[in-house]
Amino acid sequence: MTKKLEGAGLRGQSAGQTSLSTVEQEGSLRYLGYSIEDLAKNASFEEVAYLLLLGQLPNSSQLHDFENELFELRTMPTSLVSVLESIPSSAHPMEVIRTIISYMGVIEPEESFEDQLQIAKRLLGVTTSAIVYWYKFSHKNKKIDQETGEKSLAAHFLKLLRQEEIPALHQKTLDVSLTLYAEHEFNASTFTGRVCASTLSDLHSCLTAAVGSLRGPLHGGANEEAMVMLQEVQSVESVKNYVDQKLENKEKIMGFGHAVYSVRDPRSDIIKDFSQKLSQDHADKLLHDIAEEMETYMWELKKLFPNTDFFHAPAYHYIGIPTKLFTPLFAIARIVGWSAHAFEQRGNNRIIRPSADYIGPEDREWIDIKSR
Amino acid sequence: MTKKLEGAGLRGQSAGQTSLSTVEQEGSLRYLGYSIEDLAKNASFEEVAYLLLLGQLPNSSQLHDFENELFELRTMPTSLVSVLESIPSSAHPMEVIRTIISYMGVIEPEESFEDQLQIAKRLLGVTTSAIVYWYKFSHKNKKIDQETGEKSLAAHFLKLLRQEEIPALHQKTLDVSLTLYAEHEFNASTFTGRVCASTLSDLHSCLTAAVGSLRGPLHGGANEEAMVMLQEVQSVESVKNYVDQKLENKEKIMGFGHAVYSVRDPRSDIIKDFSQKLSQDHADKLLHDIAEEMETYMWELKKLFPNTDFFHAPAYHYIGIPTKLFTPLFAIARIVGWSAHAFEQRGNNRIIRPSADYIGPEDREWIDIKSR
Repeated sequence: MTKKLEGAGLRGQSAGQTSLSTVEQEGSLRYLGYSIEDLAKNASFEEVAYLLLLGQLPNSSQLHDFENELFELRTMPTSLVSVLESIPSSAHPMEVIRTIISYMGVIEPEESFEDQLQIAKRLLGVTTSAIVYWYKFSHKNKKIDQETGEKSLAAHFLKLLRQEEIPALHQKTLDVSLTLYAEHEFNASTFTGRVCASTLSDLHSCLTAAVGSLRGPLHGGANEEAMVMLQEVQSVESVKNYVDQKLENKEKIMGFGHAVYSVRDPRSDIIKDFSQKLSQDHADKLLHDIAEEMETYMWELKKLFPNTDFFHAPAYHYIGIPTKLFTPLFAIARIVGWSAHAFEQRGNNRIIRPSADYIGPEDREWIDIKSR
Repeated sequence: MTKKLEGAGLRGQSAGQTSLSTVEQEGSLRYLGYSIEDLAKNASFEEVAYLLLLGQLPNSSQLHDFENELFELRTMPTSLVSVLESIPSSAHPMEVIRTIISYMGVIEPEESFEDQLQIAKRLLGVTTSAIVYWYKFSHKNKKIDQETGEKSLAAHFLKLLRQEEIPALHQKTLDVSLTLYAEHEFNASTFTGRVCASTLSDLHSCLTAAVGSLRGPLHGGANEEAMVMLQEVQSVESVKNYVDQKLENKEKIMGFGHAVYSVRDPRSDIIKDFSQKLSQDHADKLLHDIAEEMETYMWELKKLFPNTDFFHAPAYHYIGIPTKLFTPLFAIARIVGWSAHAFEQRGNNRIIRPSADYIGPEDREWIDIKSR
């Protein structure tokens, strides 16, 4: 017998257990008990990745080894390079990420679950190099050198992209951003990955499935849409009018509100600080000021707060990231969380196989094609 | 507040509504109200695909047009051919299918949901050609001609694979098999695809996600494992001993029992009939006889019945399908069901975002790396 759920979309239903993170309505986020504020302030993204993938914070020597492994696992296989060169600039970057991971599975398969950590590290590095390689090749007609000599994933990404030395504040901004995006409990993409993991499928399958869900406009992509919106506003003075107009036309203001948080998204102030600092030296300082004004006005008007995506838009813009690479960066960071959830599902598994309510036609007699 | 579910894996919980099929415990399966027995007996796979994708049985002219479209949408893009040629023979065939679909998304994206039916038809055809192309290239070092002139997907697949005229009974066997595998309510792969669809992601994402789940050993693959097992038995007389031995060693007899059906799988007798007919003219008649004996003995011993995968093993073997292409054929057939579920989810959507019970460490103070 099937039991009816309260609402569609399994909302408010527990679909399993996790030790990885807590998302509290009133605006708190913790990874394995550590607050997102502490992690953003004190830890590098690599340290956070270690925490999520291995279940505890590393000591200095463990972190050193982990960083070195990530560094060495970054270089793309040559056949992947050919695949990337065949993908046109018109492709959706999230579909490129999905294809990179899927292709890695056919040339470097996960032979056994003992390889899972290695595969996660490999994909974290390769995906970073590969998405920038594809972007530069398809959009700028440039074959970039994959090696940057940079240890941190954030610095590596930015140097590949910009092909110049990267200021420390820019590196730090992306590094913290990756920490903010690394994990977020049973959101739709993570849940997709866990359903896949519950069949005991390989990690590449779990991650391609998760990327596919994050590609959906109801899930990822809000940072890109916030950017497009902010660029439509001409001045701080015109923000109120712009918002009023949008709301009057029943259009959504992108980057506000959240499915779980009800008064604030704890990640927003963190990335907002970076956006603010970066704006000081940037010709396009106005973008941040417009975003701040919009934050103030949306709270006044609707008691709506910015989620993590909103101030990511100016912050990413200031460090030279093209808008269409915003969501792929979210995906790269989340490879950590998705992988950790796949490991957790494998560790205590039952296949996720719900039932459905049938609402279709009753039993029907066959009708021959000539009589239809 | 989260509500506890009765069991792990959302078992027995309704996770949504569907009009596409009913799976009844006592051994009945219907697609949109039509029994699987009627469909297998009277309809071609293309007719069943039309029913599932368009919601009603076609008349002669509709079916004719549909078959022609499928025929014309079958040819692979040349860049896909290069990707296939770069995939080694050691790759897992289900990961090849996943990569084929993901790659199709980057070169022929779903621009809007209005394209969804077209994309489903395209992927049905291309996947069929591509998996055989890859198999022949990587395993036999042969570049096959993609065109066979065959209208039906079953005949096309077999002719690509065997490069000869295909006897009618062989075509019919695969055609019916595809019908049996086309749809099965909220199983794990279909549910994975629906979670992905609920973010309003593209169809390529939904299908790669679903393929990824079917690749898991708890879901797809039982037909391949049944084959491996049947080939280990030397004679009809040794079946009982073989089974006893396996059970004594706490090993599973592959292809028996089912998550939903409790007394019979309605698809089993249908494919068994084909296996029996095919065995009459085959040098390896013994394989079917061994399978029948195992069916009899498993019922006697454990009241366990064969599921659809079990007699698929000898049937596929008799029509010349290599064991590693068994599950890919399941996936190709199920593209129809997965697509129909994605369309249905899109038609009445809410993002699928459950909650989780947190069982990890309590709030923790930050510890500096030097003190760890």
